[in-house]
Amino acid sequence: VSVESGTGRIGTLVDGVFAIAMTLLVLELIPSGSTEGSLASLIGAWPKFYAYAMGFLVLGIFWALHRSIFGHIRRSDEILVWLNILFLLFVALIPFSTAILGQRPPSRGAVVLYGSNMIAVSLPLGGMWWYATGGSRLVAPDLDPRLVRHRRMAFALVPLGFAVGVGLSFVSTALSLGLFSLMAVFYIASSALLRRYRDGEHLTGSGP
Amino acid sequence: VSVESGTGRIGTLVDGVFAIAMTLLVLELIPSGSTEGSLASLIGAWPKFYAYAMGFLVLGIFWALHRSIFGHIRRSDEILVWLNILFLLFVALIPFSTAILGQRPPSRGAVVLYGSNMIAVSLPLGGMWWYATGGSRLVAPDLDPRLVRHRRMAFALVPLGFAVGVGLSFVSTALSLGLFSLMAVFYIASSALLRRYRDGEHLTGSGP
Amino acid sequence: VSVESGTGRIGTLVDGVFAIAMTLLVLELIPSGSTEGSLASLIGAWPKFYAYAMGFLVLGIFWALHRSIFGHIRRSDEILVWLNILFLLFVALIPFSTAILGQRPPSRGAVVLYGSNMIAVSLPLGGMWWYATGGSRLVAPDLDPRLVRHRRMAFALVPLGFAVGVGLSFVSTALSLGLFSLMAVFYIASSALLRRYRDGEHLTGSGP
Amino acid sequence: VSVESGTGRIGTLVDGVFAIAMTLLVLELIPSGSTEGSLASLIGAWPKFYAYAMGFLVLGIFWALHRSIFGHIRRSDEILVWLNILFLLFVALIPFSTAILGQRPPSRGAVVLYGSNMIAVSLPLGGMWWYATGGSRLVAPDLDPRLVRHRRMAFALVPLGFAVGVGLSFVSTALSLGLFSLMAVFYIASSALLRRYRDGEHLTGSGP
Repeated sequence: VSVESGTGRIGTLVDGVFAIAMTLLVLELIPSGSTEGSLASLIGAWPKFYAYAMGFLVLGIFWALHRSIFGHIRRSDEILVWLNILFLLFVALIPFSTAILGQRPPSRGAVVLYGSNMIAVSLPLGGMWWYATGGSRLVAPDLDPRLVRHRRMAFALVPLGFAVGVGLSFVSTALSLGLFSLMAVFYIASSALLRRYRDGEHLTGSGP
Repeated sequence: VSVESGTGRIGTLVDGVFAIAMTLLVLELIPSGSTEGSLASLIGAWPKFYAYAMGFLVLGIFWALHRSIFGHIRRSDEILVWLNILFLLFVALIPFSTAILGQRPPSRGAVVLYGSNMIAVSLPLGGMWWYATGGSRLVAPDLDPRLVRHRRMAFALVPLGFAVGVGLSFVSTALSLGLFSLMAVFYIASSALLRRYRDGEHLTGSGP
Repeated sequence: VSVESGTGRIGTLVDGVFAIAMTLLVLELIPSGSTEGSLASLIGAWPKFYAYAMGFLVLGIFWALHRSIFGHIRRSDEILVWLNILFLLFVALIPFSTAILGQRPPSRGAVVLYGSNMIAVSLPLGGMWWYATGGSRLVAPDLDPRLVRHRRMAFALVPLGFAVGVGLSFVSTALSLGLFSLMAVFYIASSALLRRYRDGEHLTGSGP
Repeated sequence: VSVESGTGRIGTLVDGVFAIAMTLLVLELIPSGSTEGSLASLIGAWPKFYAYAMGFLVLGIFWALHRSIFGHIRRSDEILVWLNILFLLFVALIPFSTAILGQRPPSRGAVVLYGSNMIAVSLPLGGMWWYATGGSRLVAPDLDPRLVRHRRMAFALVPLGFAVGVGLSFVSTALSLGLFSLMAVFYIASSALLRRYRDGEHLTGSGP
């Protein structure tokens, strides 16, 4: 198998972009000069730390999803490469749109930008799964079809959820933020608690 | 085979530089303070987002070309290492020259700088392909000679196209920008749509 | 074995975050404009260089501990992934809390922030070792139980030490800083000088 | 062989730090605001571009040396890890000391800082080679002893050359800069032109 058709370097590039985006969050959200280091001013800065933690976990979710998808992809082609670069283009924007959202109180524009960014990240991510699994194009031919279907549905629901959140911002930005937080918490809880059972028992074709 | 003669760490270094350059584009092109987060101001900032997307895709093109070349290179030597460092030296300048180009309206100096940067990136990239394939120096001896010739020609045409663009800037900077955009769009379209057929059918000697 | 269940990409992401955090220390602690480059002003800036070196070594310690843990972990699951992302969330804060601590004289708030950051980094790190080794969940079944126990104890002592340091800051911040430095020096000395004997002779089950 | 004793993650961390240091050079040496993008102002900024290129090539030299050393190292231990972290501690300072040196005219303090930084990078780098090859501690037992000796000598000469450069700065900073440039040019020329013959013909024990 030619190196060109492997996925090793796609993983290295993606991990690099995520590592930098995660570290840039600190610079964007908690500039060094923003606190004098007294206990009171540090405690008063808790909304910044909260925004940082949320932004970090969202990046963590997308990284975990990418890793999980590429755990099943065996080959690459130019279309996968370009879906992946499109994915990274919007991942690199997350620290920016998270910082805009971190301004208090968040404006409707900030919520729309953030939600649109999340949709723009989700679409090429889901697109890679749809493309790679279509006719077992880039995955093992014996990949469990229930796993393929289940994830296809999940990847279609994620941008839908964010679209609803963007729509809700025209009623109340607090509602949008609530929905976004709920989706993040729900994903982490379900993937850490449920997926081990689900994949391990009846969905995964590959071994542990 | 000694680790020293492999290409693994060249790939890690290159992926790291690209990951950082891609993420720095956001900082250079869309500083956090540049928008108050209202819908109107975000929409008004669209030229910045456009410049960001273009800069990102150009970095994506050069990354994809590097990955594609090194998919065929089997060994490394010091000359390859230094051509590669020269390549990175100019890749790391791309966020800078893209930011200069992003100033509206773009001056002739900005176009000349940008075009020269692209030529300076293309030459060592093409140089690596010419050097590695000459006498099958660093590639598999059975690499399809048509693939070698085809890419050699392509790598000679890229800097030529940018040189024409730089020349056009003395007529009109808009013409130069048009040519640069056309080259990027043409590359992505042709590589995603045509290369699968081309390489898959009759040019590649290696498997899928 | 499925790629998804390996630990390769966890390592790449972690190494990327550490590489950036290490390099950001320079930007946070020694801004270019902070010295005019005369010998006298450079020598006068020694506390900044000292703070930089300390911060770098602490990042080095956590990196070495992570690498050492993952040298024994053979598989991954979602819980490990999320403990790891939590670990990175606090690692990325280290340059920030080190910079706050670097302000002279360090306030109690700075010491509490720094110590809390260290505790917050240590807990998920130790958590990964406890989780992975519990019932040989993610490690080789023949891993020496003495090595497992020894490290479990060590990972419980680290956050305890930092908690004592945070408590001491209410007596004297100098005492806290002394304890933190002592812990770092002790770790590096003991790991470089003693661990080769300890692991090599009777604790490691795996080969050299 | 345990993963812990391999050198894979040392390479990833080192490549990450170099990738970031190389990219930070642009930010330190050529801030976006420093030029208005007219042809005249860009040409007038050539000393900044020259300083950038020199800084990049020096980082390239140290990266190539590290890669070359680790091409022969087969195992790792804690002492190698800590020599490596010490090496990175000073590598991460290179963009800073290069930026100080880039101020025109360079002061004696800047030359002393730069030279000292180079010495501080060279010592742990050479230390790794001495340590790893002593009694074939971490290298293959059949590594050509002439290669070991030749490189030991080279790694002892590098810090000596920089020490001479630092000393010369008390006569004339221009002399120091001349020596530093000469050393860089000589290294790149000799490694690219001569090493292929030398290693290939009679020094390397490992295959191509």
